[in-house]
Amino acid sequence: MIYLDNAATTKPCEKAAEAMMQAVTEFANPSSLHGAGLRAEKLVTAARENIAKTLGVAGNDIYFTSGGTEANNLAIFGTADALKKRGNRVITSKIEHPSVLEAFKKLEKDGFDVVFTDVLPDGVIDIESFENALTDDTILVSIMHVNNETGVIQPIEKISKLVREKAKNCVIHCDCVQSFGKIPVKPQKMDVDMVSISAHKIHGFKGCGALYTKNRRINPIIFGGEQQNELRPGTENVGGILAFSAAASECKTDADEMRKKRDLMKSLLMEGTENILINGSDEFSSGSVLNVSFIGIKAEILLHSLERHEIYVSTGSACSSHKPQPSHVLMAMGLSQEAVNGAIRISFSQNTTEEEIRFASQKIAEEVKTIRRYM
Amino acid sequence: MIYLDNAATTKPCEKAAEAMMQAVTEFANPSSLHGAGLRAEKLVTAARENIAKTLGVAGNDIYFTSGGTEANNLAIFGTADALKKRGNRVITSKIEHPSVLEAFKKLEKDGFDVVFTDVLPDGVIDIESFENALTDDTILVSIMHVNNETGVIQPIEKISKLVREKAKNCVIHCDCVQSFGKIPVKPQKMDVDMVSISAHKIHGFKGCGALYTKNRRINPIIFGGEQQNELRPGTENVGGILAFSAAASECKTDADEMRKKRDLMKSLLMEGTENILINGSDEFSSGSVLNVSFIGIKAEILLHSLERHEIYVSTGSACSSHKPQPSHVLMAMGLSQEAVNGAIRISFSQNTTEEEIRFASQKIAEEVKTIRRYM
Repeated sequence: MIYLDNAATTKPCEKAAEAMMQAVTEFANPSSLHGAGLRAEKLVTAARENIAKTLGVAGNDIYFTSGGTEANNLAIFGTADALKKRGNRVITSKIEHPSVLEAFKKLEKDGFDVVFTDVLPDGVIDIESFENALTDDTILVSIMHVNNETGVIQPIEKISKLVREKAKNCVIHCDCVQSFGKIPVKPQKMDVDMVSISAHKIHGFKGCGALYTKNRRINPIIFGGEQQNELRPGTENVGGILAFSAAASECKTDADEMRKKRDLMKSLLMEGTENILINGSDEFSSGSVLNVSFIGIKAEILLHSLERHEIYVSTGSACSSHKPQPSHVLMAMGLSQEAVNGAIRISFSQNTTEEEIRFASQKIAEEVKTIRRYM
Repeated sequence: MIYLDNAATTKPCEKAAEAMMQAVTEFANPSSLHGAGLRAEKLVTAARENIAKTLGVAGNDIYFTSGGTEANNLAIFGTADALKKRGNRVITSKIEHPSVLEAFKKLEKDGFDVVFTDVLPDGVIDIESFENALTDDTILVSIMHVNNETGVIQPIEKISKLVREKAKNCVIHCDCVQSFGKIPVKPQKMDVDMVSISAHKIHGFKGCGALYTKNRRINPIIFGGEQQNELRPGTENVGGILAFSAAASECKTDADEMRKKRDLMKSLLMEGTENILINGSDEFSSGSVLNVSFIGIKAEILLHSLERHEIYVSTGSACSSHKPQPSHVLMAMGLSQEAVNGAIRISFSQNTTEEEIRFASQKIAEEVKTIRRYM
């Protein structure tokens, strides 16, 4: 099997699997007062510190969630609720993950003044459109670090500079689910207040994510026990957390290596296949994703024809794959309907080999020719 | 180690651990359109059907969450939001889990007319107080099945009968986190609309729970992708779900067996130790919990002295163990301060042996004598 759908999810690494099994032995509730509970609590604390270290932040500022979706929701609703008296404007972009977009749509229903910033044809947020939207009553900005469909890195530092200049009460959230483990994620350098990350995108298990939040100017969205300073109650997912930490330690975060994989796939596809379009900036690519349109082909047909060779790619993002709608990201970039319909997302992991890339590109070229012959 | 803190959490069973490891092999995203995604989706669907079967309900009515806390929050906030135009009263009891109590306190802040029903000295909800609170503009009732601190079974069928008679627009939620796997949980027989359950209380892993909801008269509390009919978006915790299903299949749900364990522990303690109080009804006990007060002793001291024998029990519930406040459950039952301070929760699993109970009861008797000598 050649798995090239790593933006959807990744295979848990061995160390993550071992860490998950440690939670079978050290199974006590981290909130239990006895020694077994204390041992579990210490393991969770060590995992929190380890993940914090990779971000260059303090362990106390990491809150574990059930995944990226909940982390994004906590950041957005938690901030909007905490700061609603200071201002009414909240800003995001048109190319965010559904867990950000849908949260902002809910805020719009609830009476907030929501702006969805435009994006340029290369997949980078239109910084002018963003600057124009930014008012001094803006309380929340949520812009992703790396787009999940195109792999394009967004200009977070430019955004945070503008926010700090123009909107004193504004909190900046950055969805780093697709960047963490692939390119450096340093909240302090990026000058953002909140960062979402997810375990299963970096060879941990599904069901575990985290929100980094600095000043804790957010309210909880789930209410209950005293866990995690009552900002995120509920018995901690000990296994998922230990596995997340183990996976984070195994992450190479080697952007150059990633870019080599993408560049190789891109050049092989451009050599072997006519009438294709590479979607999204090369200059600002994370290297983890290659989004390519095969003009005249329905992407789903190509996806299924590749399955026969046990090559797995995707059309758009997994979390909206069952929707018959065209990709909101590619549409926002202004691609033609034909280019959107023929777009495939090829996404790499640090384990993807050159051999896999060569084999897959060859099969893609063959299948594209065959499909075109019959269409 | 003699682990008698099974109400806080349980050790994952072998089948659950195997199921978790299956998620390492079948690691694809269940929302991915390709064959690997489809295989993961089928596994999740089979797990959903299996858990539904144990409840005697349809698989489509099961929504996986990150645990009992989120399931309770989804039921409560989701219903309150969906039905707020039909009425303003919501009712719960004084002895609910913090994830229910705190959610109702939040509803109170948000303007709902909240009633916290009284409880009788035996730990059973005061059905008269409940009936008096029930008005025709009541939209939500949330009463737990088995209390987590006392193991007392609540009169759910009486409650639902009253609700059906007096409040036509009312939805009934039952927190079954402590009953599922120990005594039969059948939503249809209980005539409740929503049921919360949790994997780590039945030898699954932490980080996974579920909400059963019949008519879907609830709104989401987390927003994002299309997963789970958009009622609970986010990539499914495949490993946690498969393990939950495996654990559910291993559950004996043998109430008589459980009661035997509790009865044995109770009689051994009453024989071996003076001046103790058994808290909560015997008649309505689930058998999974024995709550006992050692008068004149600070429970935490006993807990730590038992640790030296690798016997693990708890004071109150794990999710509020770090709070210096006395148990809200025992206080609501009207226990004296002394009885509350000396209360230990001993909680069993289907794997607890007679030998363990005999050994633990002996050590408890010894430690109580020693502590009393020095106090």
